[in-house]
Amino acid sequence: MVYGEWLHAPGKPTVLIYGHFDTQPVDPLELWKHPPFDPVLKGGRIYARGASDDKGNLFSAIVAVEALLKTEESLPVNVKFFFEGQEEIGSPQLAKLLAENRDHFSCDMVISADGLQWAPDQPSLELGLKGLCALQIDVKGPSGDLHSGMCGGVIQNPIHALARIIDSMRSSEGHILVEGFYDDVVELTEEDRHFMAQVPYNESEYMATMGVNALFGEPGYTTRERNWARPTLEVNGIWGGFQGEGDKTVIPAEAHAKITCRLVSDQQPATVAAAVATHVKKVTPPGVQVVIQQSDHGAYPYLMPMEHPGNVAAFSVLKKLYGKDPYYTRSGGSIPVCHYFLKELGAYTVGLAFSLDDEHLHAPNEFLRLESLNRGQKGFVMLLKELARKGC
Amino acid sequence: MVYGEWLHAPGKPTVLIYGHFDTQPVDPLELWKHPPFDPVLKGGRIYARGASDDKGNLFSAIVAVEALLKTEESLPVNVKFFFEGQEEIGSPQLAKLLAENRDHFSCDMVISADGLQWAPDQPSLELGLKGLCALQIDVKGPSGDLHSGMCGGVIQNPIHALARIIDSMRSSEGHILVEGFYDDVVELTEEDRHFMAQVPYNESEYMATMGVNALFGEPGYTTRERNWARPTLEVNGIWGGFQGEGDKTVIPAEAHAKITCRLVSDQQPATVAAAVATHVKKVTPPGVQVVIQQSDHGAYPYLMPMEHPGNVAAFSVLKKLYGKDPYYTRSGGSIPVCHYFLKELGAYTVGLAFSLDDEHLHAPNEFLRLESLNRGQKGFVMLLKELARKGC
Repeated sequence: MVYGEWLHAPGKPTVLIYGHFDTQPVDPLELWKHPPFDPVLKGGRIYARGASDDKGNLFSAIVAVEALLKTEESLPVNVKFFFEGQEEIGSPQLAKLLAENRDHFSCDMVISADGLQWAPDQPSLELGLKGLCALQIDVKGPSGDLHSGMCGGVIQNPIHALARIIDSMRSSEGHILVEGFYDDVVELTEEDRHFMAQVPYNESEYMATMGVNALFGEPGYTTRERNWARPTLEVNGIWGGFQGEGDKTVIPAEAHAKITCRLVSDQQPATVAAAVATHVKKVTPPGVQVVIQQSDHGAYPYLMPMEHPGNVAAFSVLKKLYGKDPYYTRSGGSIPVCHYFLKELGAYTVGLAFSLDDEHLHAPNEFLRLESLNRGQKGFVMLLKELARKGC
Repeated sequence: MVYGEWLHAPGKPTVLIYGHFDTQPVDPLELWKHPPFDPVLKGGRIYARGASDDKGNLFSAIVAVEALLKTEESLPVNVKFFFEGQEEIGSPQLAKLLAENRDHFSCDMVISADGLQWAPDQPSLELGLKGLCALQIDVKGPSGDLHSGMCGGVIQNPIHALARIIDSMRSSEGHILVEGFYDDVVELTEEDRHFMAQVPYNESEYMATMGVNALFGEPGYTTRERNWARPTLEVNGIWGGFQGEGDKTVIPAEAHAKITCRLVSDQQPATVAAAVATHVKKVTPPGVQVVIQQSDHGAYPYLMPMEHPGNVAAFSVLKKLYGKDPYYTRSGGSIPVCHYFLKELGAYTVGLAFSLDDEHLHAPNEFLRLESLNRGQKGFVMLLKELARKGC
């Protein structure tokens, strides 16, 4: 990671600006129209791996600070740059680094230069991210694969047992039936629901994009609410027995499934994983044994109060930049770093990044709009000044 | 196939003797102590591929007929030898051959020289075999794998849908819940149950052999009854989504399962497959589509009346050979040929074969006991004479 600081604004807030300079691999290289690490300017866009995710946004923050120092010879707030090179592999060393250097990185809030706006003409502020816990269920039956004729009807089949276990975890409508699963969930307020409903959503377009003829989900919530603010439990993979061409008439010795739960505040990965494990053990039928492996791949959910001063400041900056109110959004995805800034530094993270979702992030021919680069520079200058004025 | 006939016993029954001269592959060759096609006599056994399954039994029938012709210059009944070379690949051409040559192969009954006795000192007569129908269920959801965070909780997951479909097909105790599944099942009579209960069965030994800590099965039936005389539905394989090391947080586009049902008289493979397909369509949740592929790999069940004269004759021969009553058994496995003899020739098949289940059938170092070869020769002579006396 790369760290830099300017701490000459006594009495003013200290802001840590986060970004990352690592990128996704470039494969498949043959689909790139230009060499991925030889940036090309064309049609108001800069094409290069990392242009949008996240070098462009990170660069906006640097040139904003440079501009302030050159023109005003100081910054309105204390600034700590915190740029990492492991974001795309899940920031494996970041939690430890923060925990061991709390004083060094201490700050009043974090601005993340990693993220998206809603549309070229529509800003957004992301308030929440989901956490994650992952488990593997291994169901073991007879000591070896059995002849499905010779042993049919008398030996518990591990695939049937696994199907029963999986089906017992969710109602047909998608409500999760694991005892205690929802215990720590912060319920949506009327205000939360109001702001989510402001974000446009076209159901038939969404269904067409996904290629499905019906949506699905927990009763009592809109599709957006389910996706942004409700925890989920999904089987990501399943396997057991014969999977080749034709038939092989076995009762298999084993069957397996991988499960991830996406968590919302204040669910804890370990607590939810334990609840799922308890449920699995409770519903496992006689005649098979079950082993539950909990993956290290866990993440805490993150939820920022809408009224947080950093949020209020970012809202006003985005409104000035775009001429309209930003949407308040959340994401079904997980970004562990926000949780660790909050846990180790006590600082909430406000997003200020200007990528757009059509910019081929993680794919060939990634690009960033130059107007986004300009908006980013202005946005950082405006936000640092706003935070100096109003505090955070 | 090889055919031979001796039809010089006018007014006497015509008996078709079935056997097969093809064998399973010899792999793994390195585990054989002697070359598999160079028979070795040792310790009262003959070691060779096919010794027990089924060349030895087939040879018993030939030498029995040869002995009768040499000593008595005629046979007590008309005899047709019907030896095939495709049994181990499921006799794919046999149904058509029989259908197109009914007159040529016509007979009053069939003796199958392919099969087992219960133990070295305990004979048995197999009255029933299960049939089989096979299906593959393909569940298709979104047009591609989706991010389980971005799309979690709102898109029906094909693995969950498949788990629901599978779990809906059987009660927790193993009763099959597919409508119409049991419609054509011939229920067990008190006599059937009585004879099945005569066959020794040690539950704790059986469980130890299978490596399970509990048995399972349809209420109202003993383990043997379930296994021998009740139809089953088993998932033989399942797959979908991510199956590698670690985690991949997807909602997969597809999930698949292979299912076979073992059928009992008078269930029909096509009728049962159609009932399962109807059930699957009925329980498929919205948001996914299901395609059901029915495999060609089907087989009809077979059940012979205990009081059939051929059976009665074989019973008395086995009783004389062993000095005790044979058990009446059935098998959970499928041997399509018995059904085709019955359907095309109107002839039931009585088993007269002397292999034992410890003789490494289908495995390296296959062998046959020489005493079984002798018993077979005597048995065939006695059975042909008994049939001449009592008719069939």
